[in-house]
Amino acid sequence: MNIPRHWLLGAMAALSIGFLVVGCGPQSGNGSSGNGAGNTDVASSDGGASDKEDWHLSDAEMERGKEIFFNRCAGCHGVLRKGATGKNIEPQNTRAKGTAYLEAMITNGSPAGMPEWGKSGILSPEEVKLMAKYVQNPVPAPPEWGMPDIKASHKVFVPVDKRPPAPPAGRNWQNYFGVVLRDAGKVAIIDGDSYEMINIVDTGFAVHILRTSASGRYFYSIGRDGKVTLIDLWMDKPDRVAELRPVLEARSIETSRYEGYVDKYAIVGGYWPPMVVVMEGDTLEPLKIVSTAGYEVDEGTYVREARVAAIVADHHHPTWVVNVKETGQMWLMDYSGLNKKEGSLKIDMIEAQRYLHDGGWDLSKRYFLVAANAKNKICVIDTETQQLVATIESGGMVPHPGRGATIDHPAYGPLWATGHIGSNHVSFIGTDPEGHPDNAWKVVKLLELPGVGGGNVFVKTHPNSNNIYCDRPLNPDKDLADSIFVIDKETLENKKTLVIPEKYKGMKQVHMEYNRAGTEVWVAAWGRKDQQGAIIVYDDKTLEVKKIITGEWMVTPTGHFNVYNTVHDIY
Amino acid sequence: MNIPRHWLLGAMAALSIGFLVVGCGPQSGNGSSGNGAGNTDVASSDGGASDKEDWHLSDAEMERGKEIFFNRCAGCHGVLRKGATGKNIEPQNTRAKGTAYLEAMITNGSPAGMPEWGKSGILSPEEVKLMAKYVQNPVPAPPEWGMPDIKASHKVFVPVDKRPPAPPAGRNWQNYFGVVLRDAGKVAIIDGDSYEMINIVDTGFAVHILRTSASGRYFYSIGRDGKVTLIDLWMDKPDRVAELRPVLEARSIETSRYEGYVDKYAIVGGYWPPMVVVMEGDTLEPLKIVSTAGYEVDEGTYVREARVAAIVADHHHPTWVVNVKETGQMWLMDYSGLNKKEGSLKIDMIEAQRYLHDGGWDLSKRYFLVAANAKNKICVIDTETQQLVATIESGGMVPHPGRGATIDHPAYGPLWATGHIGSNHVSFIGTDPEGHPDNAWKVVKLLELPGVGGGNVFVKTHPNSNNIYCDRPLNPDKDLADSIFVIDKETLENKKTLVIPEKYKGMKQVHMEYNRAGTEVWVAAWGRKDQQGAIIVYDDKTLEVKKIITGEWMVTPTGHFNVYNTVHDIY
Repeated sequence: MNIPRHWLLGAMAALSIGFLVVGCGPQSGNGSSGNGAGNTDVASSDGGASDKEDWHLSDAEMERGKEIFFNRCAGCHGVLRKGATGKNIEPQNTRAKGTAYLEAMITNGSPAGMPEWGKSGILSPEEVKLMAKYVQNPVPAPPEWGMPDIKASHKVFVPVDKRPPAPPAGRNWQNYFGVVLRDAGKVAIIDGDSYEMINIVDTGFAVHILRTSASGRYFYSIGRDGKVTLIDLWMDKPDRVAELRPVLEARSIETSRYEGYVDKYAIVGGYWPPMVVVMEGDTLEPLKIVSTAGYEVDEGTYVREARVAAIVADHHHPTWVVNVKETGQMWLMDYSGLNKKEGSLKIDMIEAQRYLHDGGWDLSKRYFLVAANAKNKICVIDTETQQLVATIESGGMVPHPGRGATIDHPAYGPLWATGHIGSNHVSFIGTDPEGHPDNAWKVVKLLELPGVGGGNVFVKTHPNSNNIYCDRPLNPDKDLADSIFVIDKETLENKKTLVIPEKYKGMKQVHMEYNRAGTEVWVAAWGRKDQQGAIIVYDDKTLEVKKIITGEWMVTPTGHFNVYNTVHDIY
Repeated sequence: MNIPRHWLLGAMAALSIGFLVVGCGPQSGNGSSGNGAGNTDVASSDGGASDKEDWHLSDAEMERGKEIFFNRCAGCHGVLRKGATGKNIEPQNTRAKGTAYLEAMITNGSPAGMPEWGKSGILSPEEVKLMAKYVQNPVPAPPEWGMPDIKASHKVFVPVDKRPPAPPAGRNWQNYFGVVLRDAGKVAIIDGDSYEMINIVDTGFAVHILRTSASGRYFYSIGRDGKVTLIDLWMDKPDRVAELRPVLEARSIETSRYEGYVDKYAIVGGYWPPMVVVMEGDTLEPLKIVSTAGYEVDEGTYVREARVAAIVADHHHPTWVVNVKETGQMWLMDYSGLNKKEGSLKIDMIEAQRYLHDGGWDLSKRYFLVAANAKNKICVIDTETQQLVATIESGGMVPHPGRGATIDHPAYGPLWATGHIGSNHVSFIGTDPEGHPDNAWKVVKLLELPGVGGGNVFVKTHPNSNNIYCDRPLNPDKDLADSIFVIDKETLENKKTLVIPEKYKGMKQVHMEYNRAGTEVWVAAWGRKDQQGAIIVYDDKTLEVKKIITGEWMVTPTGHFNVYNTVHDIY
């Protein structure tokens, strides 16, 4: 069933608060002058203070406001306050509302989806008052960040020639898991055979994802603070060997996977500045920057803050698929030109839908399916012909596939599944236009998960498993938020609900990852920073808890990534 | 010989005043909100007026300042005042100088190249005072301009199916010339056989160049105001058949020339907004916009105002070479993807040098040579391998080839020539790495033109001619500014100086174009708006004046373009 839009926006805001948005403070260490970034307050709108202007703040208050805005507001309203998921809150709009109205709005939220920042206690009354004034002030120019800043952030802790020449003896290292310890700014490396925590690595803050290099030897983490950490899994105690801050805020990282480019390049997608940065794969030495600011696909108006969502490496071409969220463009970025004497990047700018977010490969790894979450659509790129071949109604509200889940179904043929944040639907989409043309690029089965509301963030399966797992961490019902639903791969119906173990009640269960063999599913028990969370290991056959991995170090575990499955895009 | 840098910058400013920069008023008719364009004044730098702040202006004064700034200052200092040829004059710099200093500077100019706006009488004392204050104010957000604005500007005067099915009978239409009547905002179409003025067409203001469509049937004009006018040369009286304003300020336009794409697409390069716009070739219907803002090649810092200089169409690939001035990137833009179902543009972003300006093909039309005028370099793209193959010291200061001139020299082999704005050198560069490897990509002959100083803007030749012509319109010596120098194609020495006919003394001679047969050279006598200028036709053999084309309509003639020679890139 569907749920009202106000709930949906509330859930998305919650997603930002809990899972995506963290306190990383005002941007510091910025060597650039902070100009030219698209400040939106024009001179004429700031001329001459009148009696009504009660919104003036001291420099110290402005700084505090900047920090809160970046942590709590920018995810929905944008750094430039032009709006995306949230409304446009540039001064010409906020001043018309006035301080009292804004204070009430920030305190109580709104049915349209604004969270109740004051009522929930996340912001103090003083902070609410400050923010009501802050958003009437001119939009501060966000910091620029260019190659000089990026180069200054580059650290190589272990040079390439000092790294191990071979994988660790006696370890099934391709069954290692990297577990994001989100609020600790760390990643734990766990042996998937023995469940032993081998090491804890300092990374950027609030790591959004880990990606493996094409060989699997390295993990790349990308923090929300834009910091990339390169972790060498061949070390006896895997640890960081290099670090770079290519952008100030980020969500995505990927490596080069095509033959001849294994472990050669890495690419980061920036939220701010909106751009991609290409690096050497084994040192993180920065090579190229390309701005993603541009003209959006619906009307063709300019978007400075055109953020980069998911990036994936095509296995069949020397190409990355880069999803530019606010313009709705999918860029096929050919990195083979970097091999030439005067290296260059070649970009095919394909117009799709807004706002592109995340997605994954079909079973054949020919088609890449991406959610356009503002339009409830799935856009399909054929990486063989390098064209957009389909735009599909997802069947629910705000599709959020993560990578999705792929199934070779006995009746429907190859399918790809996505859940939704905004409704309790899991959609199964046919992905085989040649073998099963009648089912291709349509929802062949729309499953309703048990209970009211959406809140699903990830679905996951494995070729050796008969199950598809779905989490619900964003559902406001606590009994749904801590549950994992198990769908039968053949009937495509829910067959069991895995409730969080009693000890972890109050936490959410989030994100599933199989071990290499596909016999276990690892799920995070995700609590507050002052709680000890866990990785709960379920047996894929019995659906019983097989093992709980925890320790004092298990702080806010969220995403967790198996080396082999990540290298081979198994989901 | 070289000349001091201050002269050079003065000359470049003069070029802007006279040839490139015109009064087209404040940007009006802008349907966008004018935000997000990279306003550079941050909130904190504008907080709280102190006693020293004598620079406040009324709204009306700000509007007048904007207009003057756009017409007189933006060419060198940039719309965002970040500086390029001129200095950075953002408020943090101008306020430190103070109003009195700025007034003196604007009045008297500076040895570093600032023109004497007050002393010369171009600005009144009141206007000087206004501008001294204006530049201390926050930089107004320049207007945005996106697809909604562009579409609203689109006019088709004569639909495609109402246009003539065949060329005009009895006319050698491929020997037509289009003559830019710059300050009139018009283009005259002249029959090159009979010297008859056939029609005068309303165009954008201060047309910068005319380009023919690949078949030659159409002229495209691009005004400095960003307006494109499509002129159908098959009409008995060639006239405009469509119009579009893809950008607010522009310098370049080109069409698709590759087989299968003849007359199919056109592309405009914007100065503001910094972007390219692709249109249907025969209707000017806008298709795609791509922003050129990006990271410059020297340090890798962000440049919002990355303006588009010359664009040329590769004859051998479905590709445009787009020169992005401030980033120093040469974009190879493949337009064949527009043919696909979901049409897209593919861009290879090649890093070259700053500031890319203009250039032309070598004799074989395989290599495209472009001047990087801040570095006194010529960058060479091999369009066969699609790589940057050479970066050459031009041998003079501020190379300005226009399209250059190509020669098959008996001793040196194929050469390409460029003059310079900043020194009196004409450089001859070898362009045949296979046949003449010793001469390739170096200056094989550096000719000094007679007299002190630079000021050359164009060089031109024709395969049927033994001469190369060079103008000097930017030389402060009036006897050089009205002279055309004739260089012998074999000796590569100056053999004659063509002084302007007595009647036109005081005007400059500028821009040369051959007739189709290569037997005549047409030169503009370029005066003030209240003078009657002329096209002076020289016999290429005798070097005597053969014909003077004039009339009341001959207002400020500048560039003039022969249909056949433009189609075939003959120079």
